[in-house]
Amino acid sequence: MTIKPVTAPVIALDVMGGDAGLADVMAAAEIASERYPRLTFRLHGPELRIRNELARCPRLAATAVVVHTDDVVLGTDKPSQALRRSRTSSMGMAIQAVKDGEAHAAVSAGNTGALMAMALFALRTMPGIDRPALAALLPTLKNDSVVLDLGANTECDTENLVQFAVMGAAFARTVLGLERPRVALLNIGEEELKGTDELKEAAALLRGANLPMVFEGFVEGDKIGQGNVDVIVTDGFSGNIALKTVEGTGKLVSGLLTEAFKTSWLTRLGYLLSRSALRALRAHLDPNAHNGAVFLGLNGIVVKSHGSANVRGIANAIGVAHDLIADSVGERISQDLANFRAHRPAAVAADAK
Amino acid sequence: MTIKPVTAPVIALDVMGGDAGLADVMAAAEIASERYPRLTFRLHGPELRIRNELARCPRLAATAVVVHTDDVVLGTDKPSQALRRSRTSSMGMAIQAVKDGEAHAAVSAGNTGALMAMALFALRTMPGIDRPALAALLPTLKNDSVVLDLGANTECDTENLVQFAVMGAAFARTVLGLERPRVALLNIGEEELKGTDELKEAAALLRGANLPMVFEGFVEGDKIGQGNVDVIVTDGFSGNIALKTVEGTGKLVSGLLTEAFKTSWLTRLGYLLSRSALRALRAHLDPNAHNGAVFLGLNGIVVKSHGSANVRGIANAIGVAHDLIADSVGERISQDLANFRAHRPAAVAADAK
Repeated sequence: MTIKPVTAPVIALDVMGGDAGLADVMAAAEIASERYPRLTFRLHGPELRIRNELARCPRLAATAVVVHTDDVVLGTDKPSQALRRSRTSSMGMAIQAVKDGEAHAAVSAGNTGALMAMALFALRTMPGIDRPALAALLPTLKNDSVVLDLGANTECDTENLVQFAVMGAAFARTVLGLERPRVALLNIGEEELKGTDELKEAAALLRGANLPMVFEGFVEGDKIGQGNVDVIVTDGFSGNIALKTVEGTGKLVSGLLTEAFKTSWLTRLGYLLSRSALRALRAHLDPNAHNGAVFLGLNGIVVKSHGSANVRGIANAIGVAHDLIADSVGERISQDLANFRAHRPAAVAADAK
Repeated sequence: MTIKPVTAPVIALDVMGGDAGLADVMAAAEIASERYPRLTFRLHGPELRIRNELARCPRLAATAVVVHTDDVVLGTDKPSQALRRSRTSSMGMAIQAVKDGEAHAAVSAGNTGALMAMALFALRTMPGIDRPALAALLPTLKNDSVVLDLGANTECDTENLVQFAVMGAAFARTVLGLERPRVALLNIGEEELKGTDELKEAAALLRGANLPMVFEGFVEGDKIGQGNVDVIVTDGFSGNIALKTVEGTGKLVSGLLTEAFKTSWLTRLGYLLSRSALRALRAHLDPNAHNGAVFLGLNGIVVKSHGSANVRGIANAIGVAHDLIADSVGERISQDLANFRAHRPAAVAADAK
């Protein structure tokens, strides 16, 4: 089976999600329109405000379809509340557009739980995938790494972990442009005997699998920032803890660094002289540069932009959606899964469902 | 029940553990002898080499008891292999000294898995404690925080988590000198509905408990570095992932920082001017300043010094052991547990065993 490239990608954009507000979301879409001239948008939200902003977004205005709604999913809405507004809210309608074949991907900066629930309900999981996973990019000393799952599934079995590995590798091939990404399972030790039974079984299956990846076994949390693996696979609980811990430690170190530079006029001068390099460091670690978490494993692409992302960050999230469409990531995952099942290592096949 | 202070603490020291080597371990004990004049040592290891070093450690030499053994637990030994040498190895004999009442605490920088297995086997868990936990201090923007469990228990039930909270709070009262430490459970969200059933039940129990702590509910991983809570409770899998992720992110940022300062002669000069402050920052984050992980919940105190700790780090780990002895941490935990059981919140009591 050869995978046909998508030549005219369409993104359904929820213009109401996130802290940035409608004007910033549309400014981001304008930037993305410039970067990807074939990309077109469906803009879901209040028509009058969208039309006003379109005056400032000539590229977007040239092709965008506006789909009016006043209904918005709030950050405080529970997933169950949001689900009731699947057909009326800007977020729900963006997902619905993917389901109805009117768009290839939905992008929203809104409530993660609501987006996840709506996306799963409307799009359902792909054949061969039991549960979708939330994947994102993390900065490292080398290239970015993909980490998944980041909180969609608090408890995972062997099959889930194997499926996450397949999906994460496909994501890394597309977004990081790697032919055979190095994939590892996050664990509390690197020896084969460490960790839960699910992890050990998943490792055994991946070790024997014939997939377009290099399986590197287990990695510990201290390897997350090193960039020696491209895809780090874990259950949603540990993945969420790890991701947030990276954020917290980053804030800790930068907080202490700011204090350190303030201690004397000499260190203040030192800061002024080093400013350009420190700015580059900050840019390297800036979450906006790595924005765009993806729900993998659904019948359709759904990208979550971080709630606090700025215009550039949202444009990057749209870029991730564009790349996933252009590279037909869903078909790649299907192909890899079919291939994995056909050549599933015999030793563990009996135990697994 | 009033708790009697221990006036002449004795530490059984495994002089053979860790990367530092016998001379550094003994130099650390010499520093600790100076800091705590009432503290005495039993030194477990090869007598001749110990006697040679004692010539350089006058305070230690004045009171130390040397217990000869040539047998050493290696870093590569599996716990099961180590257990067979419980009575012959320097690590095993140090633990045995605690069991036999010849020392109040054992300190080793050796193989963590072996130390954990031997300590559990020889000392057994305290009444009311189902499983011991490994606790350590982490640097934050404010004071250090206690985090537990750090890898002793990969899966934990409600009771384990509650017991960890009680033990962690007692540890924080002793080592951080807090009267009512703020305690929180690590989770993937701060809302009451988030997380596993075990976490929700543990939160309900702790919320209703009358313990010398302030229960703060759930915290996410990004709060670990903030210092807004004093004790962070989690299962050993997530705790290990979080701890290692802190390490990894710290390395990532300091690696990028080093690169940043090297970009031009201007930034190099900036580095030179800021050096003193950056050194203070490094000292704040230095694992040696926070050295000394503790196995809580055993009938005896066992402190693990980090394998790569230097002399100062090992001396700090010995200091942690000293403080735990002096403060009778075991009796405090027993008292809190008895008190907790007597006033156990009725609502959840029925479900729990």
